[in-house]
This record gives sequence, C-alpha cells and structure tokens, in this order.
Amino acid sequence: ELLANIQAFFQVEAPILAGLKVVITAGPTREAIDPVRYISNHSSGKMGYALAAAAQQLGAEVCLLSGPVNLSTPVGVKKIDTITAQAMHQAALAKAEDCDIFIACAAVADYRVAEIAEHKIKKTDDCDEMQLRLVKNPDVVASVAALPNKPFTVGFAAETQDLNHYAKQKMARKNLDMIAANDVSKPEQGFNSEQNALKVFWPDGEQQLDLADKSALAKQLLALIAKQYAAQ
Amino acid sequence: ELLANIQAFFQVEAPILAGLKVVITAGPTREAIDPVRYISNHSSGKMGYALAAAAQQLGAEVCLLSGPVNLSTPVGVKKIDTITAQAMHQAALAKAEDCDIFIACAAVADYRVAEIAEHKIKKTDDCDEMQLRLVKNPDVVASVAALPNKPFTVGFAAETQDLNHYAKQKMARKNLDMIAANDVSKPEQGFNSEQNALKVFWPDGEQQLDLADKSALAKQLLALIAKQYAAQ
Repeated sequence: ELLANIQAFFQVEAPILAGLKVVITAGPTREAIDPVRYISNHSSGKMGYALAAAAQQLGAEVCLLSGPVNLSTPVGVKKIDTITAQAMHQAALAKAEDCDIFIACAAVADYRVAEIAEHKIKKTDDCDEMQLRLVKNPDVVASVAALPNKPFTVGFAAETQDLNHYAKQKMARKNLDMIAANDVSKPEQGFNSEQNALKVFWPDGEQQLDLADKSALAKQLLALIAKQYAAQ
Repeated sequence: ELLANIQAFFQVEAPILAGLKVVITAGPTREAIDPVRYISNHSSGKMGYALAAAAQQLGAEVCLLSGPVNLSTPVGVKKIDTITAQAMHQAALAKAEDCDIFIACAAVADYRVAEIAEHKIKKTDDCDEMQLRLVKNPDVVASVAALPNKPFTVGFAAETQDLNHYAKQKMARKNLDMIAANDVSKPEQGFNSEQNALKVFWPDGEQQLDLADKSALAKQLLALIAKQYAAQ
C-alpha cells in the first residue's frame, strides 16, 4: 500500500479533471430484513473505488459515497459511508448540489423491505413459506439528474441480457449525460473481478472500452467524461 | 500472518481434542434472488474460524465448512466453501457421518427465495411494491443431530431477545448435545466483532463465558465441549 501511495504521488497524469469536484458512488447497499438478515448484491465496490482513485490522480476533488465494502479508501479521497439506499440517496443529494460531475457506480437496491422487524424473525414450524413485502427505493442517479442545476451525470447499467438496449433506455429515462454498461453475466468482468469491460453511451455517441484492469478502465472512462463535460 | 503461524506452531496446548475429527460450520449463507441480488446475514465467520483454528491447535483433525467470508483459512485446517444453505446442508451431512464432534457456528439462512430469477429483475415504473416468496431451507444442525450415529452436536443461537429461553428450546427441539447462545443485539460482541460472550447450555448444566477475544473464547468453549464429549 505504501508503495502504491508513493507511485500514485509521483505519477504524472495530465490533470484533465483539475479544478473539478467529482462525486462518485460505489459498492452495494444493504437493506435490513431484521437485525440479523439483509438483502444486498454482488457489487464489490472495486470499479467505483478505481474511479475515485483515478479521478483524484487526474486532478479532481473527489468525494466517494460508499456502501459496505472491504476496500481501503484511495489516497486524497474524502469518503462517506452509507449502508441503505435511502442513506445513499440523502448523501448523494447533499453532495450533488455542489459538484461538477456525478458518477453513480454503486449498485443501489431498487427495493427495500417494507417493514423491518425489530427483532430476529423466528422460523416457525407450522409455516413453510414466508412472504417478504418490498417497496421501491428512491432512485439516486435519477434524483441527481433531476436537480435544477444538475451536475454532469454518469450512470452505470449492470445487466445480464440486452445490455445496450437497457443502457440507452436508462440514460434517456433518467436524463443522464452518459451511461456505462457492463455485462455482469460474464465471470471475467464485473462484480468482484479485477477487470471489467464497458460499453459507454452518451446522447450522440458511444464507445467500447475493452476488457482491462479496473484502474486502467477508470482512466479511460474519465477521459471520455472529461471530453463530454468540456463539450457541454 | 507468518508470525501467527510460527506462534501457532510452537504454542504448547494440552491436546484435549487429539485423535478427534471435528467439523465446524462458519459464516453466513447467501440465497440468490437473481444473478445480482441475494439475501444474507451479518455473520462474519470470525467465531467459526476461531473455533477451527483453536480445535486444530488442541489436536483435532478439523474440517471447516465455510460460507462466503473474508477470512484466511487457519493453518492445518481443511476448508470446504459453500454459498447456499442447501449446499452447506449437503456438505455437512457428507462430513458429519465420519466425525466425532460437529459444531454448527454458521448463520444458515432459514429461508431461501422460492424461484430464483434467471436474469436481473427489472424495476418497473408501474409497480411500487414487490413480493418475494421464500421457502424454508433444510435445517443443517437438526439434520446432523438426527443421524443414526450422530456426532456430539453443538449448535449456536444468535438472538436479539429472550436469549436463554430460545437457546434451551432450540437445544431440546433439535436434539443437540450443547448450545452456545450469543446476544447479537449488543454491538461489542457477536457479528463482525473481534470479541464475543457466550452462555453455554447442555442438558444438565450451563456456563457463562464472559466477553473475550473470539480466539480465547473458542478455547474455553472447546474445553467445555471436550469435557461433555468425554462424559458421554
């Protein structure tokens, strides 16, 4: 880690994000069922953390809104920990008002449990089934993109089928400036992998970023973002 | 880690479990909702891994059945990875037939999702609620304790209320030889903490093990187990 910090310190990158405030969400959220059980997802936070580290190296002032992950905070990055989608939504709105670029890389739960049990739910012998009622969570990236002075807003689409179709639909529906789609059905990329591949769309263009280490891919994506941000 | 290995190697413990085969389950299970989302629980696996390390140091041949955790396998311990309750149930039955002591420390999901979606479930605009139908999982420790030549079977009860009552009820209902109850509503012990406190019950006795590091507590619990096992 020390070596990585020293390398990061001396590495000379064109500071294409100098003077910009960048907010990045990363990791999964957890939605409690009771004090013991929860609903979550396979997001490891690695892509979001790689973006935070790269944005900081490219000169940005970075704020990272993180779900529960097992990663160390990149040097020079301010991190805010959140657990639930509602907490991440609140933190994102508070930070998005005052940033230039918002990158929503977290895998935020679409639904939470309607009623969280105060005590551990007991298994009962006479009941072989159980119904869990879920209600929709606020949509973090759509809420940010709906702000009056919205930042340049980038979303992610993790899909297991019809990748390009869903990603473009999501970009339009949520009023995003860019979306990065990744196919999480492939084991060599996406969740918990060190590598990823992205198909990036913006309203009048697209670019394929081939399979690469997440840190390299983060820099390529940030270069696309910086270019489109400047072209606004 | 190297230092810990060297210390472990030279540490002289009374080999109270010498010649015994011990199977220990540890960690949470994960029950898929779809390829992206799952239900899990806050078990970190630390107590089960501490028990596996301690049992090995006390002379036992240890097999560790582990759910998804972020822990390194203790030296000299054979580990089998499982994800779901069904997989852990299958592995436990396969290993329990041929062991002397079975310690069920894993937090196995009581319920799994009735129908796992093949593709990521899409959030739909016209539906603010969702019902998740859950069905009961097989009971790992009760299945082991119901074997014709059952091993000395130790269960755990992680509760947030009425600790002693639920623990004793569980021991009787599942035909266990011993149960270790811990109150997971207290932040300084239980899930993901380095420390724990246990109230241990067996059919004609009980003992309180006060708050201590999980490795120290593991040795105290194994001493109780060895004593009751010998008294059978």
